[in-house]
Amino acid sequence: MINNPEIEILDTTLRDGAQGEGINFSLQDKIAVLKTLDELGAAWIEAGNPGSNPKDMEFFHLAGDQKLEHSRLCAFGSTRKKNVKPADDDQLLRLLEAGTEAVAIVGKSWDLHVREVLRVSNEENLAMISDTVSFLKDKKKLVFFDAEHFFDGWIDDPEYAVAALKAAAGAGADRIVLCDTNGGAYPQLIEKSVRAVAAALGLPQTPPVPAQQSVPFLGIHAHNDTDLAIANTLAAVNAGCLHVQGTLAGFGERCGNTCLASLIPTLQLKFGRRCLPDGKLELITAQTRKLAEIANVALNTNMPYVGRHAFSHKGGMHADGILKNRRTFEHVDPSLVGNDRHFLVSEVGGRSAIAERARKIDPSITKESPVTAALAEKLKSMEAEGWAFEGADASFEILVRRSLGRIKELFKIEAYRVVSEHPTGETIACSHAWVKVLVEDSHEIAAAEGNGPVHAMDSALRRALKHFFPELEQVRLSDYKVRVIDGLAATASKVRVLITSSDGKQSWTTVGVSGDILEASRIALTDSIEYKLITDMERRLGLRAAS
Amino acid sequence: MINNPEIEILDTTLRDGAQGEGINFSLQDKIAVLKTLDELGAAWIEAGNPGSNPKDMEFFHLAGDQKLEHSRLCAFGSTRKKNVKPADDDQLLRLLEAGTEAVAIVGKSWDLHVREVLRVSNEENLAMISDTVSFLKDKKKLVFFDAEHFFDGWIDDPEYAVAALKAAAGAGADRIVLCDTNGGAYPQLIEKSVRAVAAALGLPQTPPVPAQQSVPFLGIHAHNDTDLAIANTLAAVNAGCLHVQGTLAGFGERCGNTCLASLIPTLQLKFGRRCLPDGKLELITAQTRKLAEIANVALNTNMPYVGRHAFSHKGGMHADGILKNRRTFEHVDPSLVGNDRHFLVSEVGGRSAIAERARKIDPSITKESPVTAALAEKLKSMEAEGWAFEGADASFEILVRRSLGRIKELFKIEAYRVVSEHPTGETIACSHAWVKVLVEDSHEIAAAEGNGPVHAMDSALRRALKHFFPELEQVRLSDYKVRVIDGLAATASKVRVLITSSDGKQSWTTVGVSGDILEASRIALTDSIEYKLITDMERRLGLRAAS
Repeated sequence: MINNPEIEILDTTLRDGAQGEGINFSLQDKIAVLKTLDELGAAWIEAGNPGSNPKDMEFFHLAGDQKLEHSRLCAFGSTRKKNVKPADDDQLLRLLEAGTEAVAIVGKSWDLHVREVLRVSNEENLAMISDTVSFLKDKKKLVFFDAEHFFDGWIDDPEYAVAALKAAAGAGADRIVLCDTNGGAYPQLIEKSVRAVAAALGLPQTPPVPAQQSVPFLGIHAHNDTDLAIANTLAAVNAGCLHVQGTLAGFGERCGNTCLASLIPTLQLKFGRRCLPDGKLELITAQTRKLAEIANVALNTNMPYVGRHAFSHKGGMHADGILKNRRTFEHVDPSLVGNDRHFLVSEVGGRSAIAERARKIDPSITKESPVTAALAEKLKSMEAEGWAFEGADASFEILVRRSLGRIKELFKIEAYRVVSEHPTGETIACSHAWVKVLVEDSHEIAAAEGNGPVHAMDSALRRALKHFFPELEQVRLSDYKVRVIDGLAATASKVRVLITSSDGKQSWTTVGVSGDILEASRIALTDSIEYKLITDMERRLGLRAAS
Repeated sequence: MINNPEIEILDTTLRDGAQGEGINFSLQDKIAVLKTLDELGAAWIEAGNPGSNPKDMEFFHLAGDQKLEHSRLCAFGSTRKKNVKPADDDQLLRLLEAGTEAVAIVGKSWDLHVREVLRVSNEENLAMISDTVSFLKDKKKLVFFDAEHFFDGWIDDPEYAVAALKAAAGAGADRIVLCDTNGGAYPQLIEKSVRAVAAALGLPQTPPVPAQQSVPFLGIHAHNDTDLAIANTLAAVNAGCLHVQGTLAGFGERCGNTCLASLIPTLQLKFGRRCLPDGKLELITAQTRKLAEIANVALNTNMPYVGRHAFSHKGGMHADGILKNRRTFEHVDPSLVGNDRHFLVSEVGGRSAIAERARKIDPSITKESPVTAALAEKLKSMEAEGWAFEGADASFEILVRRSLGRIKELFKIEAYRVVSEHPTGETIACSHAWVKVLVEDSHEIAAAEGNGPVHAMDSALRRALKHFFPELEQVRLSDYKVRVIDGLAATASKVRVLITSSDGKQSWTTVGVSGDILEASRIALTDSIEYKLITDMERRLGLRAAS
């Protein structure tokens, strides 16, 4: 174990991650994030800046009551103000009031910042660091010193940058965290400077020391401005850092922080460096997606390890190879990170891929089943007409069910009429629609207005169906895309509409193709509603896992 | 220069990138991608697989007529079939028929794949490689040998992996490209194996040889499955690779290919390795965004260098620091990659970019002209409403003309009404529209039917205007794209419509934004028609070059 010591993970989604564009956590959201990270087993959760943000203080008071199984809490603050004693510094007093086991203190290690941003002497900055750390150590806190802009500082004036670290270490800091605040560093620079720092602070080099209280250990905090946050963090770990900061889903300012969902699987599976308690790595896909749901952010489907398409196979040959030997086309087994292999059904996808997906509906289906051949034929002719199911799992499932006779038509749109006009009349919006539906033996007709013809039709359809299926009340369309299929005579040629719907728990995508954008939308909407109704019923019957 | 030789960039957006989820290029899209990459100055464009895809062959026939300023074309294929002579292998014959200067040939270098996927003897695989390369060299092609799964092969059986490379090099391959097909490699592995390969093939190590024909040079093709594609590519370059493959926006299967928009700025700005012709790096933001518009894919706003938020600074300290000294909070100057700080941001880049484009209409405009400032303000507020001009040059030109007062309103749509119904009546198509226009002092009203409401409106509008402007007869809409701007309540939120029109000689793209898809279409259609009329008049007056 001495050669491969564990890595101590600090997740800062609730602090640095919250700086990310479009991230806005409520108090309840923060508690939910805390639980999500604790379930995953992050060692530390940096949860806010109580000295500068009253909402963060409120959160720490609440968080104290949460029973955490694996994680411990850390609050974030800065070195004392210039010419002020720590005991008189409001920000530091509020940091203590947060009542966390650890505190992270950011301080300057780049002389340019000391001079031009902080505007104090180099000596005063060093005193600010050591005074602050000493004060917090006296209060029995574990202290993590975040050396802001360390790598830029090390390039400009390595002696001063190291002096800042020594001021913190000398005052008893438990972690010395080297921060690439602007995100411009690269692996060679990181590796070289971390080794130099370890030597200058008198820390043993590779293999690094195991976690112990008598010497501080080195940490790394990277940003992804050059797409190198993961590589930089790995380089730092390789050079002796034992403490790693990042955010589970990569949230953070500009290009984001080190994405722990990308980092942790590589550290554990490829380098044998344990980051999470046993059995927790398989949760990383689910916890990352849960975090994104809490943040109301759509994760990129191409995220390494945890993305919906991280283990997708499109080419027929790839799919075939995987089924022969998964090593041929997969760098790790997706089940190790709790993700799924996913075969995209497409022009180039073969029968194996179709059977693999159809098995989710009927486990007895094989590559040789007649229904597989029928489906392959059907897909081939639909694709020639412009259909594409790669992005539309829910429509594919409906199609398979229809081929298997495993579906009942729950409703039928008998007629609709949509009128759009400009300038608009005085009593009605620009577009208005009526829709007539048939459910069992009952007809229902409803009218609605909307911004544009698709919106008007969608509103009228839902209004008519809600009468029979009140659960549709929760469904929202969360994305809508239109694409012309062939490039000639565009507005008269076929369009493909992709609709993503959500009921707050799950989201699903359906597709429609037609020469008419409204017809294509109607087809995709119909699939979307059918999918929602079917999966709800299956869940109630225990035939499908709760989402 | 010998210590920092240039890097040869091959963009494979049109081949490997097209395997990415949701990427579906029409023939016209492909030509547009080709132009976008040529304008950026990529050395090579790998544009498809003519041996397996008839649509790709059609493209190569068209592409041969395009005048490219910087880029050269490469077609992709595989080694010959087992037990077949190259001259009898259809796939290779079609590859030659594509008529490109270079061909890329993928071959196996991992014994596991030879055994379990290809199912031939190790010797036959080596013969397949050397026969194929010799055949293509005899036909005077530049040959790039893509060693599939090289790094996995090198771990399992380094001797055989290198034997595959030697088979290609011995037969005269001009580039030996090491592919991390499954994307599971990491920098240390890459660096070590590339050095070993260079030694085994008798290539000089660092500093690498400059480009010359007498020895093949090494290349790297990485995938991003561990978030390390950039780091892996940098490690390979550091170890001597001079040829780099990737896709400009990172499109590609699973987690994507090496993102050239992340890689090239780091290579040029941080390592002094030229990848693009002089003056082209500043185009990388615009060209990447244009590519994404063509693909109808929303780029991540947090993309390094080219993302909308790559250089965004929240208020307060960061913004303040930037104003004191940009180095304090920026790892590179955003203008070097044609991006901008967020608090100054506009869709087309900074004022210099705006002035640059406005000069095409009025050569006296500079960065300091009042109209440039006014345009920057206007663009900023339009961006906030969801407009994007990267993919819509013609609308941008109309906007600049309006700001300069250099436009006359040639026509006005006074009113329209569109009705869509299903089932349809007996005498009229599913959608029908009437439109009333005003030209000078004359009114004209026309009706038309169409497939869908947009088509009906477009047809009626053209019919009304043809009366005054017969030249509109030649104009066809060649592409039509719709994107929802924010993800909430999709059919009720704003949409952005992009319309590409063509008159058989030139094609141009316009944009419209509205809560109503018909209104957004009307705006884009109006710009499109105005653009056609204005440019025709300018050509007749000798103010604009014939297209």
